[in-house]
Amino acid sequence: MKINENYLNLKDGYLFATVAKKTKEYKEAHPEKDVIRLSIGDVTLPLVPAVIQAMHKAVDDMSKAETFKGYGPDFGYSFLVDAIINSYAKKGVSLSFHEVFVSDGAKSDCGNILDIFGGDNTVLVPDPVYPVYVDTNVMDGRKIIYANANAENGFLPMPDESVHADVIYLCSPNNPTGAAYSKEQLKVWIDYAIKHDAVILYDAAYEFFVTDETLARSIYQIEGAERCAIELCSLSKTAGFTGIRCGYTIVPDALTKNGVSLNKLWARRQSTKFNGVSYVTQMGAAAVFTDEGEAQIRESLAYYQENAKIIADCLDELGIWYTGGKNSPYIWLKCPNGMSSWEFFDYLLENANVVGTPGSGFGNNGEGFFRLTAFGSTQSTKEACNRIRNLLK
Amino acid sequence: MKINENYLNLKDGYLFATVAKKTKEYKEAHPEKDVIRLSIGDVTLPLVPAVIQAMHKAVDDMSKAETFKGYGPDFGYSFLVDAIINSYAKKGVSLSFHEVFVSDGAKSDCGNILDIFGGDNTVLVPDPVYPVYVDTNVMDGRKIIYANANAENGFLPMPDESVHADVIYLCSPNNPTGAAYSKEQLKVWIDYAIKHDAVILYDAAYEFFVTDETLARSIYQIEGAERCAIELCSLSKTAGFTGIRCGYTIVPDALTKNGVSLNKLWARRQSTKFNGVSYVTQMGAAAVFTDEGEAQIRESLAYYQENAKIIADCLDELGIWYTGGKNSPYIWLKCPNGMSSWEFFDYLLENANVVGTPGSGFGNNGEGFFRLTAFGSTQSTKEACNRIRNLLK
Repeated sequence: MKINENYLNLKDGYLFATVAKKTKEYKEAHPEKDVIRLSIGDVTLPLVPAVIQAMHKAVDDMSKAETFKGYGPDFGYSFLVDAIINSYAKKGVSLSFHEVFVSDGAKSDCGNILDIFGGDNTVLVPDPVYPVYVDTNVMDGRKIIYANANAENGFLPMPDESVHADVIYLCSPNNPTGAAYSKEQLKVWIDYAIKHDAVILYDAAYEFFVTDETLARSIYQIEGAERCAIELCSLSKTAGFTGIRCGYTIVPDALTKNGVSLNKLWARRQSTKFNGVSYVTQMGAAAVFTDEGEAQIRESLAYYQENAKIIADCLDELGIWYTGGKNSPYIWLKCPNGMSSWEFFDYLLENANVVGTPGSGFGNNGEGFFRLTAFGSTQSTKEACNRIRNLLK
Repeated sequence: MKINENYLNLKDGYLFATVAKKTKEYKEAHPEKDVIRLSIGDVTLPLVPAVIQAMHKAVDDMSKAETFKGYGPDFGYSFLVDAIINSYAKKGVSLSFHEVFVSDGAKSDCGNILDIFGGDNTVLVPDPVYPVYVDTNVMDGRKIIYANANAENGFLPMPDESVHADVIYLCSPNNPTGAAYSKEQLKVWIDYAIKHDAVILYDAAYEFFVTDETLARSIYQIEGAERCAIELCSLSKTAGFTGIRCGYTIVPDALTKNGVSLNKLWARRQSTKFNGVSYVTQMGAAAVFTDEGEAQIRESLAYYQENAKIIADCLDELGIWYTGGKNSPYIWLKCPNGMSSWEFFDYLLENANVVGTPGSGFGNNGEGFFRLTAFGSTQSTKEACNRIRNLLK
C-alpha cells in the first residue's frame, strides 16, 4: 500500500504550540505574575438562551419515539436551510434551497471542498494566511502561489493580471489580519476570476463582525460572484458555536465548469462522504436566526466589539499601525521599534505579562507583525491595554 | 479551473430512490392498503435515558461561562476516548489514547480515511457491498477489484492468493448481507494483508449485534491485526445515534508503511480538515459506555434482535435460504421461485404490501437476493411475516 506522499511535504505547525510552551514556561518561572492571554482565537461567552432552549427541546425530541429523528437530510433540515436563506435575503442575496449545504463547520468544508477540484490547478493564497488553506492543498499536491499582503496594501492584496490562478482563497474580514475588502475591491477579484475561469473560495467566517456598510457581508452581494464563488460560512464566531460545530457552504447553480455543475459535484461529495449534522446542533443553529436569537447574539457581538475597540484605542494612542479591530475580532499590529514578531512576543510577555500571536507564524509577510484578539473578558482586555500603554508610551 | 474528472465516472445511486418511488406510487394507487416497510436501514427507537440526561447536562454546561466549552480536542474529549478504550479492554483489546479518533460518524471516516492513501493503490471490495466503499474510491480514481460474495461462500468471500490488493474493505457483520466472519476467517484475511503489505479497512458498525462468541467484535481481537488494519466504528446502530452523529476510528501505532506511521498521517488529516465533534454529542456518547447506559442500549438491541428472529423464523419455516439475522439487524434472503431482486420486490409489494430492498442494488452478486431489516416495530414485523408466510407457503 502506498501512502499519499504529499503528506510528507507538509510543514509542522509550530505556531500555537510554541506560544503555549513559552507561556507555560514563563508562568512556571513566575507563578506570582497574572498573565493575560490576548491570543485567544476561540469565543468565551456562553451560548445564548434562545439556542440553549432550542437544544434542550431537540434533546427532548430525541427521547420519545414519536419525535425521535434518525438520519437527517444530508444537506440540512429544511427548518435550518430556510432560516439561512432568509438571513441571506436580508443581505439582498437570493438563494435556492439546494444551493445551501449545512455542515459540521467551515474548517471541514474548507478542506473537503477541494475533493471536487482536480489536482492540477494552481492555487492562489494570500500571505499571511489561515494555515488550513495551504496545508489542505499541499495534501493534494497542488501548486500554490501567494498574493503578498503587506502594510502598503493594507493587508488586502489585489489581483495581478499577469499571474494565472485557478482557485483563489479570499477571507474577509481576514484571519489573521482583521482587514476587510470593500465591495469595489471584491468586484475586481470577481472580474479577475471570471476572466481566468477561476473559482474563488470565499471564507466569510467573520462576516457578522462587519458593521461598515461599504464592506461586503457576503460575496454574493457583488454582481458576478454567483458565477465564480463558493462561500464558506460558520456559526463559530457568530454564535459561539466553536464547540457545537455548525457551518454552511453556498455553491450557486450558476457556477459551472465546462458544463459541469459544481453544485452537483459538491452534493455528490457530501452525500457520499458525509451524513448530515446532529439534529440537536441544527435546532440550536436555527434558533440563531430567529428574532430573539439574533438580538441575543448581537449582545455577545457588542461585547467582543467593545474589547476590540479598547485594543484599537490603545494602539491609536500609542501611534502604532494596525489593521482590523473595527469590522473584525482581530487586531493586526506592526511591532514597535522594528522588533521581529517573536522578539515582540517575548518583550510583551516578560514586561507586560500579555500573550499575543506572532504574525510570522501565518506566513513570510507576517514577520514584524503581531495579532491580538477581542475574545477575552473586557476586564482583562482593559488591564492588558493599560500594561501595554505603560510599557510602550 | 479543472474539476476532479473522476466524479464523472460515478454511477448514480438509484436503489433507494427507486424503492421510495415504487412504494409511493403503489400507496397512491392503493390508499386503503397498509404498506409495511421492512427496508428501513435506520434505527427507530429513541435515545436511551442515560444519553438524554447527559446531553441535557451538556447543553446546560454550554449556557454558563464557567462551564462553556469552545473548540474541543480535534480527536475527542478524554472522557469519551477513555470510555472507548475501556470498552475495547472489555473485548480484550488494549489501545493507547492517541490510537482513538472520535468523529462525526463512520461514513465520514470511511470516505475521509482515503486521503492518506495514494491514488495508485488497488482496492478490493466485496460484491455485494455498501456503495460508499466503491464511490469514494471512484472519486479518487483508484483501481477497484471485487471479491465475489455468494451463496456458495455464505456471502463471506476469502482472499484469493493469486490476486494482489493494497487496500481491502471488510464489513462484519456485513451490510447488506448480515453475514459475519469467524475469528479464523479474519485471521486468513490478516495473513493475506500482511503478506501483500495491504491495509484492511474494517467496518465494525454492526459489532454490537454479535452475540456468538466465535465471531469477532473487533478485528484487533485477532493476532496481527494491529499491523495491517484500521477499524471504523459507529454509535449509529449501537445506540441510535444516526441523527446525533458520532463514530470513532482506530489507527494503531504498529501500522506503518515504509516507516511512515498511518496514525500520524490520519492525525494530521483530521487536525487539518476537521475540528472535533460537538461537546453535547460527545457527552451523550460517553453515557453509552456507562453501566447504566450499556444496560439501556442492550434493551434496545434485544428489541431489534427479537424482530430479526421473527423474520428468520418465518424464512426457516418457509425453507428460504438466507444469511444474517442472528448477529446482525439484516436478513439477506434468496428470492423464491427464481425471481430476480426487482421481480420479488414488486411481487412482495403488490401481494403482501411489504417493502424490502432488492439485493441487485448492492452489486452484481446481489441479483436474485433481497434484504429485510429488523429496525421496524415488533408489531409490524410480525404482521409483515404473517403476510409473507401466507403468500409463500
